[in-house]
Amino acid sequence: MGAEWELGAEAGGSLLLCAALLAAGCALGLRLGRGQGAADRGALIWLCYDALVHFALEGPFVYLSLVGNVANSDGLIASLWKEYGKADARWVYFDPTIVSVEILTVALDGSLALFLIYAIVKEKYYRHFLQITLCVCELYGCWMTFLPEWLTRSPNLNTSNWLYCWLYLFFFNGVWVLIPGLLLWQSWLELKKMHQKETSSVKKFQ
Amino acid sequence: MGAEWELGAEAGGSLLLCAALLAAGCALGLRLGRGQGAADRGALIWLCYDALVHFALEGPFVYLSLVGNVANSDGLIASLWKEYGKADARWVYFDPTIVSVEILTVALDGSLALFLIYAIVKEKYYRHFLQITLCVCELYGCWMTFLPEWLTRSPNLNTSNWLYCWLYLFFFNGVWVLIPGLLLWQSWLELKKMHQKETSSVKKFQ
Repeated sequence: MGAEWELGAEAGGSLLLCAALLAAGCALGLRLGRGQGAADRGALIWLCYDALVHFALEGPFVYLSLVGNVANSDGLIASLWKEYGKADARWVYFDPTIVSVEILTVALDGSLALFLIYAIVKEKYYRHFLQITLCVCELYGCWMTFLPEWLTRSPNLNTSNWLYCWLYLFFFNGVWVLIPGLLLWQSWLELKKMHQKETSSVKKFQ
Repeated sequence: MGAEWELGAEAGGSLLLCAALLAAGCALGLRLGRGQGAADRGALIWLCYDALVHFALEGPFVYLSLVGNVANSDGLIASLWKEYGKADARWVYFDPTIVSVEILTVALDGSLALFLIYAIVKEKYYRHFLQITLCVCELYGCWMTFLPEWLTRSPNLNTSNWLYCWLYLFFFNGVWVLIPGLLLWQSWLELKKMHQKETSSVKKFQ
């Protein structure tokens, strides 16, 4: 296989860590989702993974960025962000827009994901309020992560090889567009059902 | 009255323009809101004003920022943004984070406000889906407008006098935190009511 297809040690370690979080998210989601429908089981798997990534990976990123910067930090998670930083340098040197998005992602999105897991399992009335709020935040966060960079002709993005371009930038951010979009669609349909039930039960009693 | 309390011509003109948009929003909202409850009439007034500001003021801001910059532009709206730029310089010289927020504010929030007006007047099932989405976007936009600046110790903000500090920065941004917050609360309560009706009607047929 050509050199460009080889994974370095840092890349391998980082991807392994992501895979481990995905496995943990799946296990947790499946366990919490027993007795739920397929769509909600899928939502629970995603939300468990989502919360794990926000707290276990992005939390330390915010901490490292506020006390210094990732470039001068050591450790497993710092090395993961240094690896990702090869595709987008803003994640290695303090970028106020990225750090602002990440503070909200960790504090708000992470908490919303946990509350939403609870709301799905316990079938709470506020489930779709939280689901819409979380998904809009995730999508807005993706917009703010890339638009400022694109408006200045992407000086910090490195799309020179498939790993950085398609796996790091496209896949790992695209997932956080696709799945929140699907969950928004689920909420839209659910609100429609609730509204139709409400109007039909009102008609019965007129 | 001391010099610091005097309004310059630009400030006067800008505030007059804002007042005119508010008057237009009120007139439109009251007209569309005939027959609606007080809360929804209030929501309609806000949404009309919101849409007017997004399209009539922020739309030209985005255009001027993308074709050049506000500092080198002329006209009524350019002078309004130059006046506001005295409190926050990022609005006069191209700041990618501000322009990114404003592109989404004009295109998405402006459109959502119009659809939401329609959904309220026609009592559509997707009313609260749109309301939650719009309000979360407005709040996220406020966060991204100020957090990156605060993280870098606000080099662009001028809070040296009451006009810039309390009217331009605090009031004109605070309104876009307070009212979306109230509308989110309204949606929360509405979803709760819908859920309770749904569960009670299910119990009746068991």
